[in-house]
Amino acid sequence: MFDMIAFDADDTLWHTEQLYVDVQAQFKALLDGHINTDALMDQFYRVETRNLDYFGYGVKGFVLSMIETAIELTEGRVAGGDIQRLIDLGKQMLQADVTLLPEAEAAVLALAQTHPLMIITKGDLFDQETKVARSGLGAHFRHVEIVSVKTPETYAALLKRYMIAPERFLMIGNSLKSDVLPVVAVGGQAVYVPYALTWAHEVVTDADASRYHQVAHLGELPALVTRLEQAAG
Amino acid sequence: MFDMIAFDADDTLWHTEQLYVDVQAQFKALLDGHINTDALMDQFYRVETRNLDYFGYGVKGFVLSMIETAIELTEGRVAGGDIQRLIDLGKQMLQADVTLLPEAEAAVLALAQTHPLMIITKGDLFDQETKVARSGLGAHFRHVEIVSVKTPETYAALLKRYMIAPERFLMIGNSLKSDVLPVVAVGGQAVYVPYALTWAHEVVTDADASRYHQVAHLGELPALVTRLEQAAG
Repeated sequence: MFDMIAFDADDTLWHTEQLYVDVQAQFKALLDGHINTDALMDQFYRVETRNLDYFGYGVKGFVLSMIETAIELTEGRVAGGDIQRLIDLGKQMLQADVTLLPEAEAAVLALAQTHPLMIITKGDLFDQETKVARSGLGAHFRHVEIVSVKTPETYAALLKRYMIAPERFLMIGNSLKSDVLPVVAVGGQAVYVPYALTWAHEVVTDADASRYHQVAHLGELPALVTRLEQAAG
Repeated sequence: MFDMIAFDADDTLWHTEQLYVDVQAQFKALLDGHINTDALMDQFYRVETRNLDYFGYGVKGFVLSMIETAIELTEGRVAGGDIQRLIDLGKQMLQADVTLLPEAEAAVLALAQTHPLMIITKGDLFDQETKVARSGLGAHFRHVEIVSVKTPETYAALLKRYMIAPERFLMIGNSLKSDVLPVVAVGGQAVYVPYALTWAHEVVTDADASRYHQVAHLGELPALVTRLEQAAG
């Protein structure tokens, strides 16, 4: 029934948000001796959101936004060495080991036996490509699509490009906003796999849960796919 | 004869390197009052090249490398306001008007009447997508492919994905290293359109000119395509 099963990558197949959270804690520690950091995370989120129009998603924009926040909050007095430390933290993120989520590898291996798989992920092209390579899972995916946003138009364009009927497309991801609702909006099916951490920018509170499927972890995915295909036909 | 004609974008369809050169001049001016900047550009090129493994190509990595160079050469004493100025220069680059090269629009319009066209460009995904949109030329291209590197493997994968026979593929671009030689290496044809400025990283000095075509500007391209197709057919 499904001609293509697509996975989000960050926090669906492997841990990512934890890296961002850890680096933000180090960012706060770096400034703690110099300024009152109570408002740091709020200010950082404002800068980061404002900068999305320039930088898009990804580690490099995240680092530039940390630098900009540090300059603003210290009124320009942040030390050069501290800014270099922020760049170095970004480089560590860009070369960090890719830690798969539990059950991710088994689910991908199982479904790759029966369906063409693809990855649809957003962020920096270069960073996402190297993560797919480092994950060790790349060979199981027929296509890897790195996109700048995940809107209904994004998915409609991909379905058209690969000549996939929407009702025969299943998307799996941890973001209702990016992986689930836009797919449902274009007539596809989607599975929501909640992750422990969700970036504020991705939070959705008013989704209609009757329009998508949900599993607690990827270990439940192959059985769900079997059930959906049996129900359909 | 050609099933697909592909264009590089930066410095083939529109000016880009000039933006980088202009910003580097402002970078030098910013530091001129504080340090001896004689070695600045050499040092910046070293930092930029070293950082390619982390950041890939594009404006965001360029800005991060400017910041890193400024910190190194001032031994950490660069002012926060100056670093913010570097970030702001990057934001200006990311939203700068897209200035088409002379003849680019006419050549694209002419060839779009007779052939499917695509763009194959490298750099930051988000930046390149918004430039295609701002260029006003996007509608003439059937596909836009933004890639992290342009190696023979990159082109082989794209030809496979679009089911194009290499000998029926023509690539046009200003970089022998990225647009011409790797295409020829996989059996395609390529047209070199030199641009006034070439980033040192893209310079090639030992190319065999008998293996590719060359035009002085894109105005000569439609006639070249006609000649190649008549010769083949």
